Amino acid sequence: MDKFHLQILGSGSALPTKFCNQPSQVLSLREKSFMIDCGEGTQRQMRISNVRISRLNNVFVSHLHGDHCFGLIGLISTLGMFNRTVDLYIHAHSDAENILAPLIARFCEDLPYRVVFVPINPLKHELIYEDRSLEVYSIPLKHKMLTCGFLFSEKTKDRHIIREKVDFYKVPVREMQNIKKGLDFVTENGDVIPNACLTTAPTTPKRYAYCSDTVYTESIIPYIEGVDCLFHEATFLHADLTRAKATMHTTALQAATIAKKANVKRLIIGHYSARYEDLSPFLTEAQSVFDNTSLAMDGLAFEI
Amino acid sequence: MDKFHLQILGSGSALPTKFCNQPSQVLSLREKSFMIDCGEGTQRQMRISNVRISRLNNVFVSHLHGDHCFGLIGLISTLGMFNRTVDLYIHAHSDAENILAPLIARFCEDLPYRVVFVPINPLKHELIYEDRSLEVYSIPLKHKMLTCGFLFSEKTKDRHIIREKVDFYKVPVREMQNIKKGLDFVTENGDVIPNACLTTAPTTPKRYAYCSDTVYTESIIPYIEGVDCLFHEATFLHADLTRAKATMHTTALQAATIAKKANVKRLIIGHYSARYEDLSPFLTEAQSVFDNTSLAMDGLAFEI
Repeated sequence: MDKFHLQILGSGSALPTKFCNQPSQVLSLREKSFMIDCGEGTQRQMRISNVRISRLNNVFVSHLHGDHCFGLIGLISTLGMFNRTVDLYIHAHSDAENILAPLIARFCEDLPYRVVFVPINPLKHELIYEDRSLEVYSIPLKHKMLTCGFLFSEKTKDRHIIREKVDFYKVPVREMQNIKKGLDFVTENGDVIPNACLTTAPTTPKRYAYCSDTVYTESIIPYIEGVDCLFHEATFLHADLTRAKATMHTTALQAATIAKKANVKRLIIGHYSARYEDLSPFLTEAQSVFDNTSLAMDGLAFEI
Repeated sequence: MDKFHLQILGSGSALPTKFCNQPSQVLSLREKSFMIDCGEGTQRQMRISNVRISRLNNVFVSHLHGDHCFGLIGLISTLGMFNRTVDLYIHAHSDAENILAPLIARFCEDLPYRVVFVPINPLKHELIYEDRSLEVYSIPLKHKMLTCGFLFSEKTKDRHIIREKVDFYKVPVREMQNIKKGLDFVTENGDVIPNACLTTAPTTPKRYAYCSDTVYTESIIPYIEGVDCLFHEATFLHADLTRAKATMHTTALQAATIAKKANVKRLIIGHYSARYEDLSPFLTEAQSVFDNTSLAMDGLAFEI
């Protein structure tokens, strides 16, 4: 069964601490890796966590605060040193190109690959990326600047072939793709073999949602309803709700409330403010509302 | 006795590794800290090594390759979050301002302090910074782009007062500064008390030289002759001399040769290429020529 593999590279927020670097994650599925946000020092976090840099073709940037994008120029530069030739796609607000293009021109002479900027409209929920097995949608968030989260949604998968049955009915190889898609099989004699005799139901497609940075907003619930895993920022503890509102961030309690209301299967929280040395109260607080919560930590990986 | 305290923040080169971040050091003297180079992730390395960010007023940048300056925008941004009000001086090639000013304007709205760019001419050996106790000189190096090292030279210190003697001769307080500077004391009766009776020789001023990045060049020897400590890059082992020459870097053996020829007291090498997993051969190789050599490592501190 295919799984999303989520590698946390940075679980902190604007001020990096000893244990929490600035935000970044890598979501992997079937040999492809997708980066979400890229704070300063992300390329080194990849090294430390043994994330293979060569499989990374798409970076999704939630918003253009420095802690979510200062690592991009270093990453782009380093990919060039590895003699990469494959295009790198940066999905971000259109300002990203205005900021990065001059830096690339200045620091990355003779870059052996292309950096392609794909503008996102963070105000809209829409399909922003698609390949054979995956779709990515933007999720409008509410923060101090235009910001969006991302929903990674696996496409419906093929039905599973029952090997003995297709052998028994002598299904020719050329028919197999149709059978996997759910079509019945018609024998040379004109007999119809229902698909249900030849296959079992496909694995349920997985969905992962990333929502950071944002103030508490139930407007995201329709987009993340029932996802297998939700990463939601929890910059503050609920005792600091006033500060959370003022800076347009969320508390651990609020993140868990969103998870519960959206009926998600699992919650991961992170983006902790540097003011907290002990992070265990984040878990206690969130679990008081939504039990299946985990704390993001630099270097931790989750199988979804 | 005052000492230079040298904190290594990044001992690596262009590609950060698990153990070696991109180049940065902080040299401290009498409550003042001076940063030399600022690779990506430097602000986090400061956190990890407990370097006090508030004492940092001057950053010296050897050259504008990304691994020596990508950490500047994050550092500048973070200093703003600490509500700093004191000016920060960036001593670097004049291009630094062209690169950073737009980023500061974009990412650091309402920065509560000023970033002052002080242009360096890397082709010249000249005084580029001076305060009450310290002078800093540029050292022209030979690299792929305009690059200079830095010589941190403590000013000549005051002579040490012999307390019993100045009491005995009833030297008035108003005369003490002159006595410390080496002047004789003339009593009310007109008797001349030679300075040597009242003071002992001052502590010898310390000198620290930083030379990175550069190909092997003996042209730097006159500037670093006899320094208390020399940091010299050693990107490669001597077996890779061809690669060192092609990329305009130095081998460990060559760095040690410079140290020996310049008759320095101590050598620290660093800026290792990411290709080497085991760094111990760097030490063996350098010590075969210059015994008092140490390896720079992230987090290590040296008292000079």
